[in-house]
Amino acid sequence: MAVTAPGLRQLLDIDDLDAGSALALLDRAEALREVAAGRAPALATLAGRTVVNLFFENSTRTRISFGLAARRLGAEVVEFHAHTSSTSKGETLLDTWRTIDAMGCDAWVVRHGGDESVAQLAAAVGPEVAIVNAGSGTRAHPTQALLDALTIRQRKGRLHDLKVLVIGDVRHSRVARSNLKLMAMLGMGELRVAAPPALQAPELATDGVALFDRLEPALAGCDVVMALRLQTERMASASIPDGAAFFRDWGLTPARMALAEPDAIVMHPGPMNREVEIASAVADSPAAVIWDQVGNGVAMRMAVLEAITPRRPQA
Amino acid sequence: MAVTAPGLRQLLDIDDLDAGSALALLDRAEALREVAAGRAPALATLAGRTVVNLFFENSTRTRISFGLAARRLGAEVVEFHAHTSSTSKGETLLDTWRTIDAMGCDAWVVRHGGDESVAQLAAAVGPEVAIVNAGSGTRAHPTQALLDALTIRQRKGRLHDLKVLVIGDVRHSRVARSNLKLMAMLGMGELRVAAPPALQAPELATDGVALFDRLEPALAGCDVVMALRLQTERMASASIPDGAAFFRDWGLTPARMALAEPDAIVMHPGPMNREVEIASAVADSPAAVIWDQVGNGVAMRMAVLEAITPRRPQA
Amino acid sequence: MAVTAPGLRQLLDIDDLDAGSALALLDRAEALREVAAGRAPALATLAGRTVVNLFFENSTRTRISFGLAARRLGAEVVEFHAHTSSTSKGETLLDTWRTIDAMGCDAWVVRHGGDESVAQLAAAVGPEVAIVNAGSGTRAHPTQALLDALTIRQRKGRLHDLKVLVIGDVRHSRVARSNLKLMAMLGMGELRVAAPPALQAPELATDGVALFDRLEPALAGCDVVMALRLQTERMASASIPDGAAFFRDWGLTPARMALAEPDAIVMHPGPMNREVEIASAVADSPAAVIWDQVGNGVAMRMAVLEAITPRRPQA
Repeated sequence: MAVTAPGLRQLLDIDDLDAGSALALLDRAEALREVAAGRAPALATLAGRTVVNLFFENSTRTRISFGLAARRLGAEVVEFHAHTSSTSKGETLLDTWRTIDAMGCDAWVVRHGGDESVAQLAAAVGPEVAIVNAGSGTRAHPTQALLDALTIRQRKGRLHDLKVLVIGDVRHSRVARSNLKLMAMLGMGELRVAAPPALQAPELATDGVALFDRLEPALAGCDVVMALRLQTERMASASIPDGAAFFRDWGLTPARMALAEPDAIVMHPGPMNREVEIASAVADSPAAVIWDQVGNGVAMRMAVLEAITPRRPQA
Repeated sequence: MAVTAPGLRQLLDIDDLDAGSALALLDRAEALREVAAGRAPALATLAGRTVVNLFFENSTRTRISFGLAARRLGAEVVEFHAHTSSTSKGETLLDTWRTIDAMGCDAWVVRHGGDESVAQLAAAVGPEVAIVNAGSGTRAHPTQALLDALTIRQRKGRLHDLKVLVIGDVRHSRVARSNLKLMAMLGMGELRVAAPPALQAPELATDGVALFDRLEPALAGCDVVMALRLQTERMASASIPDGAAFFRDWGLTPARMALAEPDAIVMHPGPMNREVEIASAVADSPAAVIWDQVGNGVAMRMAVLEAITPRRPQA
Repeated sequence: MAVTAPGLRQLLDIDDLDAGSALALLDRAEALREVAAGRAPALATLAGRTVVNLFFENSTRTRISFGLAARRLGAEVVEFHAHTSSTSKGETLLDTWRTIDAMGCDAWVVRHGGDESVAQLAAAVGPEVAIVNAGSGTRAHPTQALLDALTIRQRKGRLHDLKVLVIGDVRHSRVARSNLKLMAMLGMGELRVAAPPALQAPELATDGVALFDRLEPALAGCDVVMALRLQTERMASASIPDGAAFFRDWGLTPARMALAEPDAIVMHPGPMNREVEIASAVADSPAAVIWDQVGNGVAMRMAVLEAITPRRPQA
């Protein structure tokens, strides 16, 4: 049964949820796993509905994940790529939305490079319009946090009493910000961040996250270790770290993973830069749950789209 | 019931219609509005048929509009983007068509930057091939004219005894040319064009259109006011008007709209350059029917695709 | 009935077939022609299955051909375009595959510019993963060879006792290599290649192919004449032949075709450079089977996808 959180029409960030509605989405995604994996027939929950992938940044994995989620709920998908679109002719984001909306669309999956763009769009169109944030700037990526929590629960069997470490380019990472928010809301346990000074996000300390400037002490005793991608596309070219140098100090190697709990899991939101953020020996080890994360992504996006999309009366 | 204009297999410009067949398409589109808006289930009229979006210019709104129209008739859609295609390997337009046609396609939605390209393709492939012009050069955009007429009829209740004004970059506008042709054919009333000299289309005067070189006198008494987009992509960079200067002389402001009839409607084919062609205070006023135009676009394209697409015998 | 070659899960090159399984694919494609052409309703053979178009080179015709083939078998299609993808963020080909695979996909249509990339991917993911090579580097394009054999059989009525000539840029042509392999396997007859020295592939001589450095003697008595596209995108700019000069020596003209058998057929894999590789008077003559090749492409790809795609148990 679909999650029916009253008022869950827009998922812009983790703040739109509380622990109860977040857990309900995890439960629903868990129930949808066979359908999400294509091992059970597609549902007809959103038959006749149209979901728009409104992407102002390239993102193959997230776009395909939402598209498959929508289709496995029976919806049609409209693909909107900003780089070949009327936005390059001077149209505002809101007018682009109004245009496609006027064609009869039901739910909006929006990715944008600006920190506030998705939230501003949602505020402008009104709270009754179904919108899910598929990643905005450096701030929010709520479905990634939800699918990561689902993956942790599957592998660790719980969402409490865990030591969790997030490593690397936290500064530019919406994945880190949404994850840490959700983990705090769920009371997951001790939250740590380890990053070089230039990539650290000091404001997280005020939220009870422990900040480390070296990797090894941060890893001690961890149950969940999440490496982030170096978001080089968000860095000035002069400040892009050298891959080999970054790996030497911050790369997740087998030797370093030995500092964590023996049954610790390793996560990465992808796409991975192997031998930069993570050694292949770690990425390909049984501790890695990276492909579980991807598979859970389709299930979680099905749960979210199912929850937010209004059902129009059919003639 | 679908429009069954005998011989309506190709809609290249308004000249392919007469007043009767044009009005039949308007009536059919009106009947399709609920389906077109996704508020009633999709039809199966074109089940098993394949519609090709053959676009040699970028156009998000028109491409998505035709794609949704085809799918809401039950057809499959093939998306062909010229910029990633074999046309960049030296293939002719006709050979590109022959190639996709040989794969078993039924109707062709063609957009091209050349004034004559769509008509030349249609002539080359023969009159039995279903083709709709989705915009060619500066000449023709017949479905835009039809959806605009539908919008006018919905809001004004009639298609006669109207004063209609088209403003701005008429010179580069296929929207203006197809609209003025259809309006004349339908006997819509008094047709006016107001444009600066560099963007005027003097040849229209021979068709009974009154040309104005200032906006204010042209607006007097108008029932329908249509602003055009500045087609800067079709202008030499030296001749692109400054946006602020254009707005000062030609922008559609509330003060200027006060010169028109009190119940005048405001149209724009989109994408809009706000505060260049049109003030937001006008674009967002109740007089504006801009999003109605977009919604009517899907309905009108359904009516056209339904009319032109041959039904193959099914095994 | 689908071809059920035990173990035919990956079609990377003609070497994955033997004469029996190749002929079975030709027979199945022949049976699928009406469905492939959209003249008979789509099948449900792959209903619930997801086929991925994983393209690292642009190819409109092959991408659309495989996409239509998959949809006419009832499958969903995921379009992956490398140029807008995470591969530009540093991800490896194998990780790209793992990512999409984790979303629940069933068969992979892979095109890549590297000679070995598709085979390396297939080796890495394991033999149980359904993969068809949609063109790799200068080496292999097995579905093109199969559809060409089907076209030859349709027009010549046999696959033996034929004189076959391949003309032009053999050096860069995966079409030529896969075709010559399949023709030899099927015992098609006398195989000839005619090319200027810079575009010749001398290694083919060891496979029993007769090499010619002039076109006229090579054409004598041929039943099947296949012109290749000049793969200028694979040549250093200094070595790109002048089109007019190439046509003078190597272009397929009516006068030259008169040297072949009177009922010889003319093939080209497309896209054609008219008046470079082939005169329009030949390309548009009754001897040309170029559009038959394209139509057979959809049927052959249906036969291949049907054969390789595993059927998952449905709940």
